Amino acid sequence: MAKYAIGIDFGTLSGRALLVNIETGEELTSAVHEYKHAVMDDKLPSGKKLGVDWALQHPQDYLDVILDTIPRILNISRVPKEDIIGIGTDFTACTILPAKKDGTPLCFSDEFKDEPHAYVKLWKHHAAQAHANKLNEIAEKRKEPWLANYGGKISSEWAIPKIWQVLDEAPEIYDAADMFIEAADWITMQLTGKECRSSCTAGYKEMWNKRTGYPSKEFFKALDNRLENVVDEKLSRNIQPMGDCAGYLTAKMAEKTGLKEGTAVAVPIIDAHVFIPAAGIVEEGKMLAIMGTSTCHMLLGKEEKQVEGMCGVVEDGILPGLFGYEAGQACVGDHFSWFIENCVSAAYFKDAETKGINMHEYLRQKAEKLRPGESGLLALDWWNGNRSCLVDVDLTGMMLGMTLLTKPEEIYRTLIEATAYGTRIIVETFREHGVPVKEFYAAGGIAKKDSMTMQIYADVLNMPVKIAGSDQGGALGSAIFGSVAAGRQNGGYDNVFDAALVMGKVLDTVFNPIKENVIIYNELFKEYKTLHDYFGKGENNVMKRLKSIKKSLSQ
Amino acid sequence: MAKYAIGIDFGTLSGRALLVNIETGEELTSAVHEYKHAVMDDKLPSGKKLGVDWALQHPQDYLDVILDTIPRILNISRVPKEDIIGIGTDFTACTILPAKKDGTPLCFSDEFKDEPHAYVKLWKHHAAQAHANKLNEIAEKRKEPWLANYGGKISSEWAIPKIWQVLDEAPEIYDAADMFIEAADWITMQLTGKECRSSCTAGYKEMWNKRTGYPSKEFFKALDNRLENVVDEKLSRNIQPMGDCAGYLTAKMAEKTGLKEGTAVAVPIIDAHVFIPAAGIVEEGKMLAIMGTSTCHMLLGKEEKQVEGMCGVVEDGILPGLFGYEAGQACVGDHFSWFIENCVSAAYFKDAETKGINMHEYLRQKAEKLRPGESGLLALDWWNGNRSCLVDVDLTGMMLGMTLLTKPEEIYRTLIEATAYGTRIIVETFREHGVPVKEFYAAGGIAKKDSMTMQIYADVLNMPVKIAGSDQGGALGSAIFGSVAAGRQNGGYDNVFDAALVMGKVLDTVFNPIKENVIIYNELFKEYKTLHDYFGKGENNVMKRLKSIKKSLSQ
Repeated sequence: MAKYAIGIDFGTLSGRALLVNIETGEELTSAVHEYKHAVMDDKLPSGKKLGVDWALQHPQDYLDVILDTIPRILNISRVPKEDIIGIGTDFTACTILPAKKDGTPLCFSDEFKDEPHAYVKLWKHHAAQAHANKLNEIAEKRKEPWLANYGGKISSEWAIPKIWQVLDEAPEIYDAADMFIEAADWITMQLTGKECRSSCTAGYKEMWNKRTGYPSKEFFKALDNRLENVVDEKLSRNIQPMGDCAGYLTAKMAEKTGLKEGTAVAVPIIDAHVFIPAAGIVEEGKMLAIMGTSTCHMLLGKEEKQVEGMCGVVEDGILPGLFGYEAGQACVGDHFSWFIENCVSAAYFKDAETKGINMHEYLRQKAEKLRPGESGLLALDWWNGNRSCLVDVDLTGMMLGMTLLTKPEEIYRTLIEATAYGTRIIVETFREHGVPVKEFYAAGGIAKKDSMTMQIYADVLNMPVKIAGSDQGGALGSAIFGSVAAGRQNGGYDNVFDAALVMGKVLDTVFNPIKENVIIYNELFKEYKTLHDYFGKGENNVMKRLKSIKKSLSQ
Repeated sequence: MAKYAIGIDFGTLSGRALLVNIETGEELTSAVHEYKHAVMDDKLPSGKKLGVDWALQHPQDYLDVILDTIPRILNISRVPKEDIIGIGTDFTACTILPAKKDGTPLCFSDEFKDEPHAYVKLWKHHAAQAHANKLNEIAEKRKEPWLANYGGKISSEWAIPKIWQVLDEAPEIYDAADMFIEAADWITMQLTGKECRSSCTAGYKEMWNKRTGYPSKEFFKALDNRLENVVDEKLSRNIQPMGDCAGYLTAKMAEKTGLKEGTAVAVPIIDAHVFIPAAGIVEEGKMLAIMGTSTCHMLLGKEEKQVEGMCGVVEDGILPGLFGYEAGQACVGDHFSWFIENCVSAAYFKDAETKGINMHEYLRQKAEKLRPGESGLLALDWWNGNRSCLVDVDLTGMMLGMTLLTKPEEIYRTLIEATAYGTRIIVETFREHGVPVKEFYAAGGIAKKDSMTMQIYADVLNMPVKIAGSDQGGALGSAIFGSVAAGRQNGGYDNVFDAALVMGKVLDTVFNPIKENVIIYNELFKEYKTLHDYFGKGENNVMKRLKSIKKSLSQ
């Protein structure tokens, strides 16, 4: 009898459940549920206004994903609940909420339902920037040793700045919370009835390290006296590695979903990191780029190295027993969309309309006829700052080489090439710091749909590019962890390595580097690198100075 | 009884005649005649194909301008021919043709009418680039002293490269020609019946200098043995200064035009330089920018200084007794048009259409609301290379500071600002070399129509910007020279200074620098200058390397 696992992928606007055959990796059926409250960046359900840069969510929406999608996939697939042996989840992060000891979110109470700080702070809540800045300043001054594990800078998107903001702006919420918990861990707690803390979220977003634990009490005290014991009072030191079983489905949840009570539930993982097993990657040296509006780069290594400008390195953070490295590019698909929305001529739009194709496709048809170097253009892909390896939000875009004959498709292709050069910088930085990168994989919409871009990446990196096979990589990866949580004795797997090799997928198509393109892109990359360092490493801080003039005007 | 002069302005596609009252400067009436053959860049009238970068004209078209427009303005104005005392002309340059001793163009003969080299080579005929390159190489090697008077480089648009091309590719034309003559001088010869050589064209386009004459025979011989005596064989050493009378209208021309025989005809001037008297400028230190698709900067000085990267300095070249300095920006209005044609969103076009305004106007309405520095953008205005002061066609455009929120109007304004910074570089370079620039004037379509751009120039230069008053500045300037050719005894003027003060015009509107803008633009200009030098002076030759990669691909 075939066994199955369910993966549930919690994204920014919706959640998706996927039913997967454990022995074949076959994706039987899936269901999507959109969050009723979506992203609250303007007001609370009560109408209460939110500040600038706020982004909240409602935890009921996450529960509704489970209560809606699981019955639907059971109903459609007709798979008996006894054969579904494991559940895994992945979640955006750091997406964090204050809750009572039993997991009840503070925003569920009448007392706090009109208090913004009682809700979930979504990953892209950026209103804690001032706290992040202060934190970085103090950490740097104190020469905190863990700082280098995060490329030297903590993001305002991460847990401590967000918790600190609550403490400062709504101390009554801070006091009333028995815990601050990642939504990933919270949803797991809802399924199992017991508190869970994942090594993935703890490592990448709460500054926890398997060997050294959290930053010291002295550090937290240096931030704010009231934060001295934040870890013991509001977080947890009981961290579970990836691949572990977090617990078992409660009777109540079994009844509500139609699943079997006692079904194994996996320790949750971040929605980007989960793509690694979904692409069948289980060993060091295989970089995976998840390419969408921005790009996340995931890489496994056998050793902990401190690599300049990466987002984080976490032991057990992606797969147990390995170090999970994360790097990122802040602006990839966003570049191309910005260009199309703002800078493509009316004539092109008219022509594309006549041809009945969208503008990306239209530009791609023209751009793929261009040879590397033919446009004479070169860009720095910093329209949204630089996440790795410069870690600098104040850098901005640059393009040069324009003439009166420059056409939109040339600019479009140049922006794509720029993101490929940015990826090459990341790859080379890892290598220079002793973290091998031997293969390159890509996942996400761009990877699947845009063969021109993938060929450019192969040519720029001078590496074959393999494409992740599933269209539902997040949910598939979660299902893999679900099958591992169940264990072999229940028809699942003993470990994530075995599971990923069976259930993970890559496409047959491989984009191989074309030799003559590689030669030209090597030349162009040299130019990119020179400008990258000139504008990015302090030789000419013109971008920062322009930003500061701009800021001074809006004050 | 009022006296009148006629100015005839020969442009790239048409000629315009204007009748002006000498005592008041009043512009009575004008008539335009479009050249029947326009620019021949593809084939001869016979259908014979032309090469890449060729641009020819037909001399009959110039004659037709005179034969069509002058009778028309006489007819409309009803001014008696006795009261029209002088004629002046201005012409594009170097626009040059081979002719017989009596002025008959070789292309008029049956023998040569199917030979491209027998026709007029228009200023923008660029097929002599190889000859210009060789000429510059040899001149530099020989350390020719006159080279510095032209910013260190001779353009392929100028006379010697063009003549040399004829010699190389059609020696029978070179041999058959009794002279190579600027179209400006040729049309004057048609009016007066005697050969004329203007100090303006000779100085700016034929490398003639009032004190030192032409380059040496040795130099010409070093180019090509056959060119050793090119000056004496094909040009002339009899050069007339600006403001002189070139001769008097022939009986034949009088009959054909309806003018009086013996009407004074002025020594002709280049179509850009003629704007100086038309704006009433008669002394040193007043820079005039003629702003169109590109910009020409004209400036008078009392001394000859060799200024890095200018286009030329010629004694008597604009006004007699003064040194006329010329500088230029290769791409001004062309920038803005490129941007609109290629890079403005369809949404903007739709909105502009609804509002019934053109895209320049639409963008201007948005851009003029922006404060200096607000966009965070900065550009180098090199979409068409750099004419002054770097004199480098292989430089290309650059822009930085883009974010995902950057809007088209911000880019548009940034391109305008970039041309203003480019102008400031020219102004400062003149000053650094001891040529005073005390006032700033602008002429041309942009100057008249675009108050936002003029305010930006005033703020960037920190100088008031005055606007030339005539919409027909070329023809007005020519009429001024016509009135001087007639002389005071005939009701005209003794000199161009007196004439220009009466007949030249500026508008009452002056764009005064706004202090707070000046402060920010000073900051931004510093950034521009740093990047200008970084990319333009050899620190990072990325633009040239990209161009050379691009070129290598098309071979």
